Amino acid sequence: MSINFDELSSFLAIPSISGELSYRDDMEAAVNWLCGKLNSIGFRAERMETKFNPVVYAERMVDEKKPTILIYGHYDVQSPEPLDKWESEPFKSEIRNGNLYARGVADDKGQVYCWIKGVEEALQLGEVGVNVKFLIEGGEEIGSAGLAEFVEENKDLLKADVCMISDSHSLSETQPLITYGLRGLAYMEVEVKTAEKDAHSGTYGGVIYNAIDVLTKMISALKDEKGKILIPGFYDKVRILSEEEKSELAKFPFGEAQIKEEIGALTVFGEEGFSIPVRAGARPTLDVNGIWGGYAGEGPKTVIPCVAGAKISMRLVPGQSAKEIEQKFKKYFKKIAPDGVEVKIKSISGAEAVLLEKESRFFEAAEVAFEKVFGNKPLYELAGGSIGVVADFKNILGIDSVMMGYGLPDDGLHSPNEKMSLTMIEKGIKTSKEFLMSFE
Amino acid sequence: MSINFDELSSFLAIPSISGELSYRDDMEAAVNWLCGKLNSIGFRAERMETKFNPVVYAERMVDEKKPTILIYGHYDVQSPEPLDKWESEPFKSEIRNGNLYARGVADDKGQVYCWIKGVEEALQLGEVGVNVKFLIEGGEEIGSAGLAEFVEENKDLLKADVCMISDSHSLSETQPLITYGLRGLAYMEVEVKTAEKDAHSGTYGGVIYNAIDVLTKMISALKDEKGKILIPGFYDKVRILSEEEKSELAKFPFGEAQIKEEIGALTVFGEEGFSIPVRAGARPTLDVNGIWGGYAGEGPKTVIPCVAGAKISMRLVPGQSAKEIEQKFKKYFKKIAPDGVEVKIKSISGAEAVLLEKESRFFEAAEVAFEKVFGNKPLYELAGGSIGVVADFKNILGIDSVMMGYGLPDDGLHSPNEKMSLTMIEKGIKTSKEFLMSFE
Repeated sequence: MSINFDELSSFLAIPSISGELSYRDDMEAAVNWLCGKLNSIGFRAERMETKFNPVVYAERMVDEKKPTILIYGHYDVQSPEPLDKWESEPFKSEIRNGNLYARGVADDKGQVYCWIKGVEEALQLGEVGVNVKFLIEGGEEIGSAGLAEFVEENKDLLKADVCMISDSHSLSETQPLITYGLRGLAYMEVEVKTAEKDAHSGTYGGVIYNAIDVLTKMISALKDEKGKILIPGFYDKVRILSEEEKSELAKFPFGEAQIKEEIGALTVFGEEGFSIPVRAGARPTLDVNGIWGGYAGEGPKTVIPCVAGAKISMRLVPGQSAKEIEQKFKKYFKKIAPDGVEVKIKSISGAEAVLLEKESRFFEAAEVAFEKVFGNKPLYELAGGSIGVVADFKNILGIDSVMMGYGLPDDGLHSPNEKMSLTMIEKGIKTSKEFLMSFE
Repeated sequence: MSINFDELSSFLAIPSISGELSYRDDMEAAVNWLCGKLNSIGFRAERMETKFNPVVYAERMVDEKKPTILIYGHYDVQSPEPLDKWESEPFKSEIRNGNLYARGVADDKGQVYCWIKGVEEALQLGEVGVNVKFLIEGGEEIGSAGLAEFVEENKDLLKADVCMISDSHSLSETQPLITYGLRGLAYMEVEVKTAEKDAHSGTYGGVIYNAIDVLTKMISALKDEKGKILIPGFYDKVRILSEEEKSELAKFPFGEAQIKEEIGALTVFGEEGFSIPVRAGARPTLDVNGIWGGYAGEGPKTVIPCVAGAKISMRLVPGQSAKEIEQKFKKYFKKIAPDGVEVKIKSISGAEAVLLEKESRFFEAAEVAFEKVFGNKPLYELAGGSIGVVADFKNILGIDSVMMGYGLPDDGLHSPNEKMSLTMIEKGIKTSKEFLMSFE
């Protein structure tokens, strides 16, 4: 077994919690640990400042003419709360039933370790045919705060041909997974105002607009009964999937049974004419994430509310621009408001969708390495979420990311008893090594 | 001037706040004050228990063959909070600019005093031609808690031909007002559930129902764009106004300008084909009084909520039964829910609409008394609110109520600096006296 348990657990023992200021010293300790380890295997590693937490940058150049890979990961972890739900100490690694339990082991210290150890082992066997750079940040759990600016300011330093990211999961210990697309996001907060004061429904019921009535009618006009979004031009630039992609996605084991089991959904519902994996990864959506207005306490209160608000977000797909969709939303939402009603809309978050070019030597190398170690070709996933750094690397550095999942779906990220399977750690190390050694 | 200022202010000095348990002794003090005063003018007054606060019952029978009037009022008051907004002490009466300022002066101690004093003055002039009963409760501000049971249990004692209520307002010091109809109420709380857990919109966006989306669509199906309620059979039994009533109501000074001034409404809105006073008093309505679901804090959270809820109430008019409308609402609301979505509905409040028979000797006597004192005939109002006791007196005792407003629209009920105009107190006393003396 190639895992050095003492080494890995000394990294996992550092409570580098980025969400709480009192762990500043631990952030530095994690940075030192990484610099020490990377220097020991032949890298030039350094701590670099961002506006928030420091990053670790390291490089090992063999030949400027050879391709350069940038390995991204993060050393910060989520808070381990609630502590009483842990079966062992969150910052004291423990092995039970073939799993290593510790906060941050899957997200993302263990996966980072797979790459470091994979590089180390590859180098022990001889020179590799790629230049390797590491960028390991300390703010991923707080929205990669400060990272985009750092990348922008260090474009030359970070120059590479591809970014390798292991911060996700495969389907099982024998079925690897590569994510090649991410949805974008346009997130709005809306407010409807009908009067200066709330009114009593005895006196004013029937003669004025009710802000909640107006807002619910407007929200209801955003989608039809079948879930189709009614904002004019919303679907105009949505990328059409190839037949090959559709049949590839159809293999993906994400269906009614999984959804019902995972979140207790009473039923599934989505756009007509699309399979569940396509709906979840390759179609744009619109969801109301929160709504408020009027009286929500105990018992009856006969109030006609003058203000009501909601948070509304859209998941976007390649082809759609977050800015453009935001504008279309705003225009339509204002248009459907009745005369004499005040509407405010503000954008509170956004991210562009990303589609990566699978037909590249790096995706091929990842596929070959995965197959060699796992015995199966990876499935390719269009993921429904957004990962900001992938869009940043694409936009700022002009490179694609290959997202190789070394975790498993049940690792319990952000939850008590986070774990990583020893088998997956070992396979992750081997896959990283195979990937590196495939370049001549 | 017939107001005995010291007497009235000793009544107003008692903080008989029914909404706070620590004022129990003051409730008793108010009861004692009333019993003392009523006994002193020739009544047999007594404190009687209800399940909540005690009531004061008093009677003075002259002749069983003569008509009996039951004068209803309440001695409890609202809390004076916020105290720092008062210009004088809430429980220390002060006269400024022709107004008497004190908590509860208009709602309802001063108006009760108008009747007591009116009876006293009438009796000083000789015997009156009616039997007089007083029922003064201590729980009006907490929904007349316990009163319906008390009336039910004391039907014989409370037997009367009419109930006189002064707990409302006239339009001005020269334009009196009598309310002859009240809207009813059916108040529901609804909840929509789509899954056991909230879900992340990255993973599940596009494949499951969102509870807020479902709820807003359902709410939106309750009314059309013009405000017409779409519940099948909702309008079936709505009483049609006579032409005379319509033109009487049209005189009522409640229009766009008033509504905009009073609550800062940006515009008026209501059912097509009806004037504003008709919409507010004689047409049923449906309002969402509160809505909740998902994330309402700062910033974005990409959650798909599994539960959302709302409070929805309907103002009803004579002809409609609260029970029947409640059932129609429930049936329709469940029908419009998509398959595979769980809907819960519970009724949390209800009241029947009331229409009183204006063509009675008591309404006529009230009209004559008002005209004599104010110089103008009263306007007749169909009020938009609900007053539970009026329906109770009608259903349990089988008698109508004559609601004579001795307050003014700007008295500031339930607000700091509650006041009653000295002119209105005096006119109220005179009007009560004239009313009593009109019976031979």
